[in-house]
Amino acid sequence: MDESSASSRLTLRPTLSQSRHLVMLSNAILEVATKHPIEFIDLTERINAHLRAHEIEHGEVTIFSRHTTAAIKINEAEELLLEDFKRLLRRLCPPEHGYHHNDMSRRKPPIAVDERPNGHSHCMHLLLSTSETIPVIDTRLALGTWQRVFLVELDGPRRREVFLRFTQYLRHQPARVIETAALNGYQNGNRSSRGLR
Amino acid sequence: MDESSASSRLTLRPTLSQSRHLVMLSNAILEVATKHPIEFIDLTERINAHLRAHEIEHGEVTIFSRHTTAAIKINEAEELLLEDFKRLLRRLCPPEHGYHHNDMSRRKPPIAVDERPNGHSHCMHLLLSTSETIPVIDTRLALGTWQRVFLVELDGPRRREVFLRFTQYLRHQPARVIETAALNGYQNGNRSSRGLR
Amino acid sequence: MDESSASSRLTLRPTLSQSRHLVMLSNAILEVATKHPIEFIDLTERINAHLRAHEIEHGEVTIFSRHTTAAIKINEAEELLLEDFKRLLRRLCPPEHGYHHNDMSRRKPPIAVDERPNGHSHCMHLLLSTSETIPVIDTRLALGTWQRVFLVELDGPRRREVFLRFTQYLRHQPARVIETAALNGYQNGNRSSRGLR
Repeated sequence: MDESSASSRLTLRPTLSQSRHLVMLSNAILEVATKHPIEFIDLTERINAHLRAHEIEHGEVTIFSRHTTAAIKINEAEELLLEDFKRLLRRLCPPEHGYHHNDMSRRKPPIAVDERPNGHSHCMHLLLSTSETIPVIDTRLALGTWQRVFLVELDGPRRREVFLRFTQYLRHQPARVIETAALNGYQNGNRSSRGLR
Repeated sequence: MDESSASSRLTLRPTLSQSRHLVMLSNAILEVATKHPIEFIDLTERINAHLRAHEIEHGEVTIFSRHTTAAIKINEAEELLLEDFKRLLRRLCPPEHGYHHNDMSRRKPPIAVDERPNGHSHCMHLLLSTSETIPVIDTRLALGTWQRVFLVELDGPRRREVFLRFTQYLRHQPARVIETAALNGYQNGNRSSRGLR
Repeated sequence: MDESSASSRLTLRPTLSQSRHLVMLSNAILEVATKHPIEFIDLTERINAHLRAHEIEHGEVTIFSRHTTAAIKINEAEELLLEDFKRLLRRLCPPEHGYHHNDMSRRKPPIAVDERPNGHSHCMHLLLSTSETIPVIDTRLALGTWQRVFLVELDGPRRREVFLRFTQYLRHQPARVIETAALNGYQNGNRSSRGLR
């Protein structure tokens, strides 16, 4: 097995932080107006700007598409490559195939008021992802050099909502220091102890 | 590049919560008895019921399949569409193909006691997901209108276990308020101060 | 609909933990030197060893590939199956296809100094995953019997970095206990109260 000697090729560099943290949650909705049937929209800079504006230094972000025909994926923002991706998706899930989902004579309610024949869009989505969770370090998404986060429109043009959940970690300043001062003050019978202020 | 003007089409609505939270973890196992070789089982209502029953108001849920031939995916619970999905998976990973994994004469131990010729099931799984992480808001999964969470059986019928990890955030009431009251009571020499109760 | 009776087949076993936790973050980089164009490298034991060495008992790990041609996936570490996976990926995204991304005459900068004709590698990655988030229980990844975590090299050999983000939960010992003791001691006028020690 090729993988048998894997352990010898793995090096782990730990960068432990020993402090304890409280969590601060925040949410945001990213509204995107897409223009094309299949389209890759780079969200990376917009999310990094939000991290900076709100000083979210350490934590993670969950980037969650609220749609069944729009996905979230990480890959490279290279124009020709995005054309390759569109071609791949159309080859694996051809729009011209007959999809049961497109047979409105057999569909049961509820049916969306703006429903289109989009069986291929759902099938493409099944092969992609609804969300990505990305660590945040030093007020930035901890992405590699070539990684960008995309909303992948599969049934556009449409208005899309991307839900952003920011989990921020804040250093916990335990109250014990103050308490101990209080106890000392009491035990010493010293009301004017600096510890009491 | 189509995406060049993307930033002008993005609108971000922040909904910041400024409170600090402690984390409360809880786990649950969802046991599912599947009935068909390929089957989509909607878990959404069962998970929402758990959130309500345990008053898990804000946080997230990781929904994790403990299997290599059963996946977790989010898509629409439309009966005809689920037939399209099954057809797509069988087209990309035909069960009748010759899979090395099915050649028991070459397989090394350990081999599962209930092992079946299921190379196609593993291949389907490679194209799907082992887990989804979904934010929780107001005691509900923060899903879009048409989104449902499915366990996707790829080698049924089988008994399956879905691991649920609930991360709940609880407002941190810092102890300082009480301490300050105590200090005030002490400093004032007033034992019956309301702050001391 | 097959799924109509699903709820009757679902059993949920809750295992609630009622304690409140602070978060301790830590990061690590796993460096992997891959040897083959397409290769599955099992990271499971290396990550479990780190959990044990750093006594990370409860929490989760996000295993994040910092690359657009190397993925993270969970499946079974069976030698013949890994050959099936490689064959599937080459069938869905044939390396010999003409990819726009490989046409250097049309590519705009920036272009990586070590750039190769790897359109197929990016396309394979689009069908896989950049990361997995896995719960940690009792100092181990909470994986099922046959589940292993792989770095999936799609454009090797290369040196790869896998970012590991450990989110550990530590029981929060609220300061209130000590305070209450202090208050009792004060109210009782008893300086030698055991509660004050």
